[in-house]
Amino acid sequence: MQDNLITPAKSAYAYPLLVKQLLTNALSLYGDQEISYRGEMRYTFRDFRHRIGKLASALAALDIRHGSTVAVMDWDSHRYLECYFGVPMMGATLFTVNVRLSPQQILYTLNDAGAAIVLVHPDFLPVIEQIRPQLTGNPRFVLLADGQDAPKTSVPFAGEYEALLAQAPADFEFADFDENTKAATFYTTGTTGDPKGVCYSHREIVLHTLASATSLCSPREGQRMHREDVYMPITPMFHVLAWGIPYIAVMLGLRTVLPGRYVPDQLLKLRETEKVTFSHCVPTILQMLLQASADGKPDLSGWKIIIGGSALPPALCEAALARGIDIFAGYGMSETGPIVSLAQLPPGCTPKDRAEEVRMRCSTGRPVTLVDYRIVSEDMQDLPRDGKSRGEIVLRAPFLTKAYFGKPAASEDLWAGGYLHTQDVAVMGPDGFVQIVDRIKDVIKTGGEWVSSIEVENLITEVPGVLECAVIGVPDARWGERPMAFVVRKPGVEVNAEQVRGHLLGHVESQRISKYAVPEADRITFVEAIPKTSVGKINKKQLREDVA
Amino acid sequence: MQDNLITPAKSAYAYPLLVKQLLTNALSLYGDQEISYRGEMRYTFRDFRHRIGKLASALAALDIRHGSTVAVMDWDSHRYLECYFGVPMMGATLFTVNVRLSPQQILYTLNDAGAAIVLVHPDFLPVIEQIRPQLTGNPRFVLLADGQDAPKTSVPFAGEYEALLAQAPADFEFADFDENTKAATFYTTGTTGDPKGVCYSHREIVLHTLASATSLCSPREGQRMHREDVYMPITPMFHVLAWGIPYIAVMLGLRTVLPGRYVPDQLLKLRETEKVTFSHCVPTILQMLLQASADGKPDLSGWKIIIGGSALPPALCEAALARGIDIFAGYGMSETGPIVSLAQLPPGCTPKDRAEEVRMRCSTGRPVTLVDYRIVSEDMQDLPRDGKSRGEIVLRAPFLTKAYFGKPAASEDLWAGGYLHTQDVAVMGPDGFVQIVDRIKDVIKTGGEWVSSIEVENLITEVPGVLECAVIGVPDARWGERPMAFVVRKPGVEVNAEQVRGHLLGHVESQRISKYAVPEADRITFVEAIPKTSVGKINKKQLREDVA
Repeated sequence: MQDNLITPAKSAYAYPLLVKQLLTNALSLYGDQEISYRGEMRYTFRDFRHRIGKLASALAALDIRHGSTVAVMDWDSHRYLECYFGVPMMGATLFTVNVRLSPQQILYTLNDAGAAIVLVHPDFLPVIEQIRPQLTGNPRFVLLADGQDAPKTSVPFAGEYEALLAQAPADFEFADFDENTKAATFYTTGTTGDPKGVCYSHREIVLHTLASATSLCSPREGQRMHREDVYMPITPMFHVLAWGIPYIAVMLGLRTVLPGRYVPDQLLKLRETEKVTFSHCVPTILQMLLQASADGKPDLSGWKIIIGGSALPPALCEAALARGIDIFAGYGMSETGPIVSLAQLPPGCTPKDRAEEVRMRCSTGRPVTLVDYRIVSEDMQDLPRDGKSRGEIVLRAPFLTKAYFGKPAASEDLWAGGYLHTQDVAVMGPDGFVQIVDRIKDVIKTGGEWVSSIEVENLITEVPGVLECAVIGVPDARWGERPMAFVVRKPGVEVNAEQVRGHLLGHVESQRISKYAVPEADRITFVEAIPKTSVGKINKKQLREDVA
Repeated sequence: MQDNLITPAKSAYAYPLLVKQLLTNALSLYGDQEISYRGEMRYTFRDFRHRIGKLASALAALDIRHGSTVAVMDWDSHRYLECYFGVPMMGATLFTVNVRLSPQQILYTLNDAGAAIVLVHPDFLPVIEQIRPQLTGNPRFVLLADGQDAPKTSVPFAGEYEALLAQAPADFEFADFDENTKAATFYTTGTTGDPKGVCYSHREIVLHTLASATSLCSPREGQRMHREDVYMPITPMFHVLAWGIPYIAVMLGLRTVLPGRYVPDQLLKLRETEKVTFSHCVPTILQMLLQASADGKPDLSGWKIIIGGSALPPALCEAALARGIDIFAGYGMSETGPIVSLAQLPPGCTPKDRAEEVRMRCSTGRPVTLVDYRIVSEDMQDLPRDGKSRGEIVLRAPFLTKAYFGKPAASEDLWAGGYLHTQDVAVMGPDGFVQIVDRIKDVIKTGGEWVSSIEVENLITEVPGVLECAVIGVPDARWGERPMAFVVRKPGVEVNAEQVRGHLLGHVESQRISKYAVPEADRITFVEAIPKTSVGKINKKQLREDVA
């Protein structure tokens, strides 16, 4: 077999896929386009590029080199956007610190990532003050101030961001290097163990940008992004690179608004004054925005919002649609770039009614460009696309994280069999719409079927008198596993196991659930309370341990 | 300096960028979408993928392997589209033979490319019959028949396409391989020397597809491609992969119409019956389509057409706009992927009048995503974006051809200084719009300025009594070069050198041309005729030799 590779001319430019190239066209075509910080400060793309050069010079003067890690602790700002480009462009790694973690977790991640420098907003100085004695890498610190007076702190600053930029030359030369160079890193926190470092290379960021842009820009009208949109992220920039969307916005030359810390009234005001048309956020934020404008003011119509982070509840979707928001869900994880599916309506699709439309907009969505998106059984066989067969979502795409930082065993688990395992259990319909039904660790494998614990829980809570409920799988010699339900009654109401079974059996009749989903009477246990995790989620791990 | 590369998990999928991955989503989401051949035959994307598997099996049975070259001589057909995918997907190289070349040139290219097999439509059998004795590689032949009886021919066929597919299994396994593997090749013909083989790798095709799609899909409304378009190429599929647009159409899941041989009435009928909304062609074809529907039937409104291959004349653009066609120019060359700029109006742009709009739509356009597009002086310095400073267009993009096949010297010339040299001389305006003014070999370098020979020719032909004119640069001790004009008078009309100079000097006055552009009286020569090339273009090489 010949290799059949092309031998380039000696002088041919190899064009590695680098973050800096996302700026090429933006600058050539949209140099006058504007970036605004909280509506209080604004500059052009040309200024932006100029400041990126200054940032790199300033960091280089602080000994940041190719391969150094630059940590940022900030709200969504123009400075953060400058770091999204300037830090990777100089061959260093941008570490977007999750400022919502506990101080001990932040300490762990700063040490694990080997941060050489920390760029920090005054709001996070108390954390740094607390953990500084335990930082192992002796990092330097740079203050990110919004023009306030210098804060009183024990943290020794190498300088303040604006002052450093003011004295740095703008003509930093951004050299080419291998496209597989680490561009960005951040940490994902599971329910167990230490946070795990996720990395993305330049190639992965560029390809995520192109693939997401293709999916987001190509619909005929609704649920799309275009060159005249005004973009404002409302997913924190420390959270999976704000879903990668700032890179798309800059590449397409969109006017971009960075809102600082998220304050609902401030976000609504910015949306109005800056004429924002495209955003993305988690359901909770949208809920807050709707509440803060419940009197219909300001008008939210024409705002396109992608919802991610957790499932979009149908009621919230309805409420947003009623306000004229073009809302739809997206799906991805820290490890997946992140965007791998979007709940855009397919070409020519006219949902038969609002309920159908809401179901589609709230779904896990349809795969984005280049994503090989499979729903598989435990032995990695494709399941029928019948909207019923349940299996794990496994993925291939040119922008998935290739490994957790320094965690070879977890990395191998993630990539078992050559596909990235999301641990999300889903069904896929004939139309390519995916719907997640459970996490794989919570799904109950019984009688050859995968029963969604969440679905059974939802049905049991419909039984009059039931306050709350948790369902787990327990080992069973004959069926592999069987569902076991823990039910909390409303105060002073009588509910028994047969009532619960009766309700569930009714849904077996109507084919909403399989008969295997109905627990035996002796596996329906009435309890005073259900154990919860620190963030208020049902602690199924605890329940399983209690049963064992 | 640390290398700072990511070490992937052992099981992580590397995801090389391969042509097969453009099919991933198309199949997952648009399996029922339709591909039509001349409106006479139609099948789904699912059938398409099935037949691609059969094609690969059939070719493998004819000893085609990774690294083999598969030549195709066909009009635009579903078979051609199957070859666009199936041949590269098996690691072989698709050779799209330019059937408009002379038999001797076709012979040269088949031998130079080392074609192992030739898939040939009956219309091209006379050529094959003529050149077969001189084919060096002993290629096999496969007949591409549209259901006709087997033609009488001396060409020994290894089989007929449909018959071979019918007996071939569909489950060919398309393995992964290096993304820099040669996927497609074809030949570019200059005015001198043998045709030069241009190659594209899988990576280059995938990145051209993504970058073009991003540029084509992202405008808010006009001049764009979207998921509900119906696509019909009217640039031959042997011509620079039909500008790469079939790959975009399949990736986005567009209904695709292959029109066979281009016959204006047939194309118009297909446009109407198949409801085609997106096409691309050369000006000549558009001219023919407008003439064939000059009575206003069929209605052409809503048809989006990109014009390339040569400049879009303003009058043709006006005529197309008057018919409701959303027309705009694109620019590229065989060596550039090909699309590097598109004459899409920028966001928010409202031309002040129709003339302004026509000028924009007819321009060389604005750079597409990821293209580093420079207008440079001879010493590779960027020229001002003032719409006046003339220089060569030089390019970097991740989809430019890296070398001519077996022509290291020509390849080095192409890439001198690490930028691809288009040999097109252009100006760039402050808005990023590029306008080509001449070919570099025809531009006249005089007094430190670059004078467009074409511009001077156009002005001289405005002089009453001038039938035709050619302008070349001739050596001059003081000025480097000076323009020299060859003028043909209309029969029986008197025109002299001072009249020509007077007209040109008027345009110096109005600042349309530089004073250096006006030839001295003794460099304005009246001739009986101007030498032409075989395709009817002015033969400036001949004129230069005559002067020398």
